[in-house]
Amino acid sequence: MRIVRYAVGGVCHYGELEPGDVAIARFEGDPFTGLSLAGRVDEVSDVVILPPVEKPRIYGFAYNYASHVDETDREIPEVPVCFMKPSTAVVGPGDAIVYPADGELIHFEGELVVVIGKEARHVKPSEAHEYILGYTCGNDVSDRIVQRKESKYGTLLIGKGQDTFAPLGPVIATELDPSALELTTRVNGRVMQSASTADLLLPVPDLVSYLSRYLTLLPGDAIMTGTPAGVGPIRPGDEVEVEIEGIGVLRNPVMAESS
Amino acid sequence: MRIVRYAVGGVCHYGELEPGDVAIARFEGDPFTGLSLAGRVDEVSDVVILPPVEKPRIYGFAYNYASHVDETDREIPEVPVCFMKPSTAVVGPGDAIVYPADGELIHFEGELVVVIGKEARHVKPSEAHEYILGYTCGNDVSDRIVQRKESKYGTLLIGKGQDTFAPLGPVIATELDPSALELTTRVNGRVMQSASTADLLLPVPDLVSYLSRYLTLLPGDAIMTGTPAGVGPIRPGDEVEVEIEGIGVLRNPVMAESS
Repeated sequence: MRIVRYAVGGVCHYGELEPGDVAIARFEGDPFTGLSLAGRVDEVSDVVILPPVEKPRIYGFAYNYASHVDETDREIPEVPVCFMKPSTAVVGPGDAIVYPADGELIHFEGELVVVIGKEARHVKPSEAHEYILGYTCGNDVSDRIVQRKESKYGTLLIGKGQDTFAPLGPVIATELDPSALELTTRVNGRVMQSASTADLLLPVPDLVSYLSRYLTLLPGDAIMTGTPAGVGPIRPGDEVEVEIEGIGVLRNPVMAESS
Repeated sequence: MRIVRYAVGGVCHYGELEPGDVAIARFEGDPFTGLSLAGRVDEVSDVVILPPVEKPRIYGFAYNYASHVDETDREIPEVPVCFMKPSTAVVGPGDAIVYPADGELIHFEGELVVVIGKEARHVKPSEAHEYILGYTCGNDVSDRIVQRKESKYGTLLIGKGQDTFAPLGPVIATELDPSALELTTRVNGRVMQSASTADLLLPVPDLVSYLSRYLTLLPGDAIMTGTPAGVGPIRPGDEVEVEIEGIGVLRNPVMAESS
């Protein structure tokens, strides 16, 4: 099932995106407390597709593809290295990534994103799938100049946490094996990243298990699994697409911040 | 006013802690959408004091007292250096800080904490007070072994984000000038940190302004302003107290994780 969150007539719903991407079977409820068919179909052309989760806590993993570790001249980390992005960084499909007025070097990072379905603590990798609702596409937009200055002190927030720096969507694909999905990032139609999630150093079950060893994961939490090689700059006027097999395309324009 | 969040008969309320700390004038509503007196008084001895904010987004500032920068052999950072702690790290007054089963070096960090009262973006330091609801005490509990391993890669999550690693409370003091408050941290009654918030490298208005330049602060967000010199280890069986002038004492026992 491909779950989509959308607004129609100013009201927010969850629904199932039907094959062909033209119609949405509307649900009552939400995927974390329970869904039932509302008995109504909305046309995709009549609705606004929203980020698949509202105000998620976002966990990100860094250096989780060997190819990206290589391009940053690092070694593979001794422990999984993670950070958070604030909920206010989230935008949905089609929404603008706002290029900050004082931005100098803003990068895209295409990523597979895990959406947690139920509370999880001390979960083994072999049980992780029971706590996962599904998967979406994400763009871990990064301000490299600020990131480098923060990282020198072993912290990371503004470098990855600015408003609009976490596009997510377009759907949550619930019946997907995340172990070998093709991931492609394009800027203005040109392929910049092309990888398989088979190359994740820590695969999805291990990421969920690792976080849950230390902290309680909650329904709606989003886990950005890391980006492969090929990251690079974006500029106002660009369009970035993150496409993952079985999920779809997350497309966002880049817009200059109005001053 | 000293606002307290508490549970009585399994129901959560906000109230005003009255002078003498014996009685609470119960409110209807919450301090972010509006408070009115419920016309009822609860006895402190009959209630459970909760963390002053429910599931806050927590922003932390590192290296924000010269005395603490010194003790870590660092230089003062070029930019403010911040991170997030997950909402699940929050516990209230009296709740246990759980010492992780595989923990080796867990430190306390006493801190002044700002509670945001309304949405804030692009706020000047001179206007910051308009967006602040008040102040509470916080303990930025840190797992130094994990923190060091993460920080080598310029990230920080598990080192400061484990469940129970963000004690907050006991009240939100709303009429407090944060510019020169005495802050004291005690472990088992012994003074370990003693400082004034006058020594914050970036004072409170600048912290709010800095974050709001890049991201939208939301009502209920908690900003941990950094810790002064004197940080040190805690062990199961210890009791940590963070006391700030005009707010009160945040007291938490340290308990071994049950395996």
